[in-house]
Formats: sequence, C-alpha cells, structure tokens
Amino acid sequence: MLPGPTNVPNRVMNAMLAPIINHRSEDFRTLYKSIIEKTQKLFQTESDIVLLSASGTGAVEASVVNLIKKGDKVVIPVNGEFSTRLADLIDSWGGQSIRIESQFGENPPYEKFEQAFDEHNDIKALYAVYNETSTGTTIRYMDKLGDLCTRKGCFFVADSVSILGGDELPTDKWNVDICITASQKAIAAPPGVSPISISQKAKKYIQDNTSPILYFNLKRYFKYYQEHFETPFTPALPLCYAYSEALDMILEEGLDRRIERHRQCADAFYTGLGSMGLSPFAKPDARSNLVIAVNYLPGIEDKKFRDILSNEFKVLVAGGFGNLKGKVFRIGSMGEVNKYHVMRTLSSVESALRMLGVEVPTDSINKAMEKFR
Amino acid sequence: MLPGPTNVPNRVMNAMLAPIINHRSEDFRTLYKSIIEKTQKLFQTESDIVLLSASGTGAVEASVVNLIKKGDKVVIPVNGEFSTRLADLIDSWGGQSIRIESQFGENPPYEKFEQAFDEHNDIKALYAVYNETSTGTTIRYMDKLGDLCTRKGCFFVADSVSILGGDELPTDKWNVDICITASQKAIAAPPGVSPISISQKAKKYIQDNTSPILYFNLKRYFKYYQEHFETPFTPALPLCYAYSEALDMILEEGLDRRIERHRQCADAFYTGLGSMGLSPFAKPDARSNLVIAVNYLPGIEDKKFRDILSNEFKVLVAGGFGNLKGKVFRIGSMGEVNKYHVMRTLSSVESALRMLGVEVPTDSINKAMEKFR
Repeated sequence: MLPGPTNVPNRVMNAMLAPIINHRSEDFRTLYKSIIEKTQKLFQTESDIVLLSASGTGAVEASVVNLIKKGDKVVIPVNGEFSTRLADLIDSWGGQSIRIESQFGENPPYEKFEQAFDEHNDIKALYAVYNETSTGTTIRYMDKLGDLCTRKGCFFVADSVSILGGDELPTDKWNVDICITASQKAIAAPPGVSPISISQKAKKYIQDNTSPILYFNLKRYFKYYQEHFETPFTPALPLCYAYSEALDMILEEGLDRRIERHRQCADAFYTGLGSMGLSPFAKPDARSNLVIAVNYLPGIEDKKFRDILSNEFKVLVAGGFGNLKGKVFRIGSMGEVNKYHVMRTLSSVESALRMLGVEVPTDSINKAMEKFR
Repeated sequence: MLPGPTNVPNRVMNAMLAPIINHRSEDFRTLYKSIIEKTQKLFQTESDIVLLSASGTGAVEASVVNLIKKGDKVVIPVNGEFSTRLADLIDSWGGQSIRIESQFGENPPYEKFEQAFDEHNDIKALYAVYNETSTGTTIRYMDKLGDLCTRKGCFFVADSVSILGGDELPTDKWNVDICITASQKAIAAPPGVSPISISQKAKKYIQDNTSPILYFNLKRYFKYYQEHFETPFTPALPLCYAYSEALDMILEEGLDRRIERHRQCADAFYTGLGSMGLSPFAKPDARSNLVIAVNYLPGIEDKKFRDILSNEFKVLVAGGFGNLKGKVFRIGSMGEVNKYHVMRTLSSVESALRMLGVEVPTDSINKAMEKFR
C-alpha cells in the first residue's frame, strides 16, 4: 500500500518476458506505435506522446530542460517535497521560479495565481504538481489554471506522476501543454518508463529551442517518431512491454470506472480512518484520492506503528518526508487498489492501534464498508 | 546477432519477475549494495559505482554534464557515429572538443594524443569511445591514454558501452576516471540500466562542481548511496534484478574466461568471413572482438542480404550507420555468444551469399571451426 511503486498485476509482470527484439525493427515500431496511441487515450489527448526510459523525475526534468530558458519566469505552487524539488530544478536550470507557497496539506487560493499574472506580464509557464505525494494533497482547480494559462498565453505543465490514471485528467480539455506521469503509480506497471504529452503549441516552441541536453531532448524523440515510429535511444524494452499491457488493462476497465474505483477506495479510507479517530493531513478541499496522508495520534511512534503493520500484517505504508517525518503516515491507494486492499489495510491499522494501546471504536470497518455498497 | 540489445539468458529474464519492492526498504538496500559490489568486480575497480536507470546514452551524458564546464577543453578521438555524437554533446554542453579524427575503421596513431597535449596545456579531460559500435573498431591503446592523462593531470573517461564484459578493461589499472557501460551489450541483460564508475579524483571534483541537472546528478547518487545504500530516484527495479542476475552469471563464468570466449568467437568470425572473401571494415590493429563490421561484396544489396538472413535463417545482423549504410553489415558477437552462434551465423551468411549468386569457397566453415579447437 505504498504511494508507488504500487503492486503490479501478474499479467503485466509476465509481459516483460516477451523476447528482446531489435528496437530498429518493424516489431518494435508496431509495439511503440500502439503504446503511443493507447497512451493518448489514457491522457485524453491528441498531442504527441513520448515514452522516456527513466523514472518520473527524469520526465519532469525533460519538461524543464526543453522548455525553460535562462531568466524565464515560471509560476509554481509549492507545498510539499515534490513541488519544492521541481521549483528548485527550475531555478538551478536558470529559470526564475515565482513560488506561490501555502501550508503543507493546503493549496493556495486560486486567486493567488491571477495575482501573480497581474504582477508579472512575462510569465513563460505555470508548472503545477497535480498530486503532491509527500502530503496527500491534490489541486482541484487544474482546469482553471489551464484556462488562465490559455488566456495569458503561457505554457501549462502538469506534473501528474502520482495521479494520472487514478483521477480526472482530460489533458486537452484542461489545456495542459505538457503532462507528465510515470509507470509505477496509478498505471500499476513496474517503474522505469515515463510517458509525457506535448501539445502542438509546446512542440512548436521546443522545435525552435536549442537545449544542450541529449537523453531527454524531446526534439530527437519527435524526429524519430515522425520518421520511424522509433525512439532515438535504446528503450527499456521489458518495461515497454509491461507498460503496454498495463495500458490494455486500463482501457479494458475503462478510464471512468477506474477513476470511480479510486474515488470510492479513497472515500472508504478517509471514512474508516476518520472513524478510528485519525485525521487526514490534507484539508478537505485538497485531499488526494490516491495518497492518503494521515496524522499520527499523539504518542504513537512512526517506526513502531509501521513495523507492526509490516511484520504482523504484511501491510506496507510509507512514513512522512522531511518535516513530516514521524508526524504522518501515507497510504498509497492507487493502481490495482480495490475493496480488499482497503478493508485489509484498515483492519490492520485498527489492530495495530489497539496493540499500541489506543481505544478504537468498533464500527470503523463497517462505516468504511458502507462506501462500497 | 545484433550489436545490442543482445540475447538475454532465460535465467536473467526470469529474474525480472521478483516482486516489486519498496526502493526505500532494507530489501532494496541489500539488492543494490550487492549490485554495486558485483559491478566493482566486473569493472575491476574500487571506485564508486552508480547504476542509472537509463540507456547507455544517458550514462554517457551523465559523464559530461557532471564533469564538463563551459569552455573546458576535451580531447576526443572521432571515427564513427558514437564518437561523433559524444563530441557533439560535449560541445553543445559548452565544452570545447579537440577532435582527433581518423578514417572510419581506423584509430588515430597514439602520438596524435601526445601532440594534442603539447599544443594545449589546459586540457580538462580525454574522452574515448573504447569500442565504436558503428564501425566495429576498438582502441587498443586505452592503457597508454590512461597513463598520458595521469601524467598530464586530466580526467580519462571511457565510453565502454558496447565492450565492457567482453574485452579487457581493468578500470583502475588503466587509470580510467569515469567508465561507462550499459546492461544490454556484453553484459547480456535487458536494456534500461547503465552502470558507471567514478574514481576518487573525479568524485572529489564532481562534489565541488555545480551542475544544473537532476536525474543524472551524480552528487545525489553518491549521497544516497553513502547515507542509505539507495538511489535518489525510483530505480527500474525489474531491470535491477535482471542486471544483478547477469552479473552473477558473469562472475560464475569468470571475467578472464568470458573475455577469452569473446576473443575466440571474434577470431572464428574474422577467419570464416575472410575465407568467404569478405573483408572486415576495420583495419587489423583496430578490429573489435564484439562488433564484426564487414564490407559488402560489390553487387550485394544490403536489404536483400539481411532479409534472406532474417527470413530464411532467423539470423539478425545490423546494417551500417550514416555513410556506411549499404556498404557494411555488422554482427554483434557479445554477451552469451558461443560457438553455436558463430557457426550458425557463418553458415547462414555462406548460404545467403550463394543464394545471391556469389561463389563461396566450401572450406570457410571448417576454417572457422578450427578456431574453437
């Protein structure tokens, strides 16, 4: 129950055993073309798709090093580990981040973004971490940010690593120019490949831009796909097979049903945990359906609690990052998550709390179960 | 029989099916630590090792973006696709390449390097592509280049992507500061992870250097390994399992025996092909034991020849790059290659040539076979 890498279905794991083929062959072209087309459905986009053989961090970096030039102003909401890291990367690459900060667990009011654009008339891009894995918060006005960027003529980049495939993200409808995710979160494939979509507007800009980098140089990916349906560099083939199979499973389930399943599981988690007396770390309007971050009760020690969960119940949850270390635990509710995972996790949390001397109401599990009826 | 990705033994493929574990867990630390230690044996080094989740191109880029600053002079022999690409990358990153060019298929005389150092007293690094996959040439004086760099106090970087594990490369003995390879060549694992060794001297320099990049930022990898035996970003876990298994197979065989096997197979290839009237593209003192590049006989059409090999005999060989397209074909003789692969390939080449109307002597296969006695 980690917030990534998530459990991978056997069907997806076994897909990795397909033969190692030449990535300059018709067999590979057929595979890669189908991966691109299925990814477009997952992203709900007609934009170009590039599959990078790298983790999500690499794909996020690709969005910076191809788009941002020295001195470019970039608006970015910052309220956790991953948004901080992204803002730092923008600055170290030579961009000039305009950070809209808020308390961890909260998102800034939307008006702050309009203000930033009022104060600066030369903003190049708005980057937003749609789901902040470190705090379990999701930005619920991504559509409005997209509209704002369209009105202001700037690029809108969505770091959707830990959410795409598990919550709403109609890339084109929301005017996302560059949308980034990774294989090992809500998509439920093994880690190591990261798809990224690039709008025509962003593509045109990137084509004219000169970037000194090679492995994440999107121009090369555009060229190789256009000319050969290939990748410019050797792809991580077994992970491409697995990702392709995971996409099949997503499309078989249907994106809407998949998102509804995530919503329902999150609802059950928040209900059950709340009933046990545990409060979510995130404010109500910012709560993630994929990462459930929970405040520890006073006196409960992080390591002891998670050791019980892990050793006695074989349930793995994550601790907190940085300042939140020891203060919260985080449950990944994504990918293949279903009622069984939720109920088993809740019942283990309940038992662990009792073992640590906490009085827990006896109806928590029932209340969570109701959410599945 | 491609010059990478090469065939992967079932034992290595099956290793990918091990469970997806948390990369912030003791299980992963144990795995990663053992990967690093085994890689040190493969590289014959006591240097730090970093395993990047990326293809060889990504690892080569890491060696540039961490080490080279704007204006740094870099000596580099250029005689093929990959050495050209590397020299271009050095320049686009802001370095100043001093290219020692030679005809494709030949290496420049060693004296040219001494001359370059005589002409410039502020050379930062010497980069050399040890095995140029595009032309089937290997630099046979890497040890002397290492000595020269040590004497001149500059860094020695060896792009060993298509050779390490299949030919001599005692990293420490040859004074290689940064040595780079990839999983899918002579190591015979699936593509997607790339190990790189960094000497204490290079590490110290990199620690003090500021580089604006993130995913290939070696400083982060040093820190995470030193503090936790972890990688800073989510690793491509199934490929780590596979790479680890491939390392076990290499160490079980023994590096010396493995190198001797590669040498023997190459010897048989050159002998058999030569006996058929086919000449190697590379000059005798530059011939690779891992990539056998062969000139086409006049009148033999590349596509037709390779189609016969592929369709009738299920033997895949590669064509030429760029200017060499249509002029040469290339056989990968690396990884798990053994007598069976060599003989089957030679016999298929012989038959394909006959089908295309070439008179081929009838004793070529026997002559090759003798090399295995």
